[in-house]
Amino acid sequence: MSRLDSFIRRLEAQRSCLGDAARRTQKLNGVALELGLGNGRTFDHLREICAGREIYVFDRQVAAHPDCIPAPDRLFLGDFTATLNEARQRLGDGAAALIHVDLGSGDAAASIALAARLAPEIAALMTAGAVVISDQPIGHASLVALPLPEGVRPGRYFMAEKQA
Amino acid sequence: MSRLDSFIRRLEAQRSCLGDAARRTQKLNGVALELGLGNGRTFDHLREICAGREIYVFDRQVAAHPDCIPAPDRLFLGDFTATLNEARQRLGDGAAALIHVDLGSGDAAASIALAARLAPEIAALMTAGAVVISDQPIGHASLVALPLPEGVRPGRYFMAEKQA
Repeated sequence: MSRLDSFIRRLEAQRSCLGDAARRTQKLNGVALELGLGNGRTFDHLREICAGREIYVFDRQVAAHPDCIPAPDRLFLGDFTATLNEARQRLGDGAAALIHVDLGSGDAAASIALAARLAPEIAALMTAGAVVISDQPIGHASLVALPLPEGVRPGRYFMAEKQA
Repeated sequence: MSRLDSFIRRLEAQRSCLGDAARRTQKLNGVALELGLGNGRTFDHLREICAGREIYVFDRQVAAHPDCIPAPDRLFLGDFTATLNEARQRLGDGAAALIHVDLGSGDAAASIALAARLAPEIAALMTAGAVVISDQPIGHASLVALPLPEGVRPGRYFMAEKQA
């Protein structure tokens, strides 16, 4: 499989998981969190599929398309550990119904380690029934893995639900 | 349609056009040219679908994934006008059976102008029956537009064949 094929599959898997998470959390109150704005494509997609839900975005710096930059009061800029802690204070634990985590940096080991380090903060921000979609496994006692949507290869994306 | 949806459609259209061009030129002798290496994803795809064909790549600089960097003697680095002229001298007019052009820079007017400026060099490098696939229209008297593969919206990609 070429890198073009593989990239298309990853984007399709991402869209499929985001759609599944949006449906699962439709009746849940809470905000949506996007960890890793990047070029802003998934933020734009979240705006569409989570219409009506406030979306907060976390990244080290803003490098997105001008149309896909969140309002300043919806943006947490800086190191993820620091900004997730800030969000816990500002929004409160259990504030989020849906979290999308896109940490992939090309350095697989570093991405996995970062996800493990952030897992407690991510779990704390989720309300019962909230769903986290991630490009890395997010391991936490309060999270239970969800089956992936049809067509998504295990390991390509991860989904988990916060227990009550 | 979100930017994620639109991006997936563009990549699928690109893959579909590349596949169609590879099939159309299967029995034709000649090299393949890739204008715009970028991250190297379509170069990697061309390697797969044009197996056995020499591929030459043109770009201003190399910013591709390490696995997708062509051998030095297959790489024309610098301004496209200069390197296409160099290729005409080194490979000869009519050397190419397939050319993929990915100029899109975000500045639509500049990309269209660049494609128009490069069209005579691109056409000169094509053998009779060769196919050019491009993200911008490549207008030249010797090129005739081809129908796009099913599912590709007109204007998203362009395909043309060199007349005998």
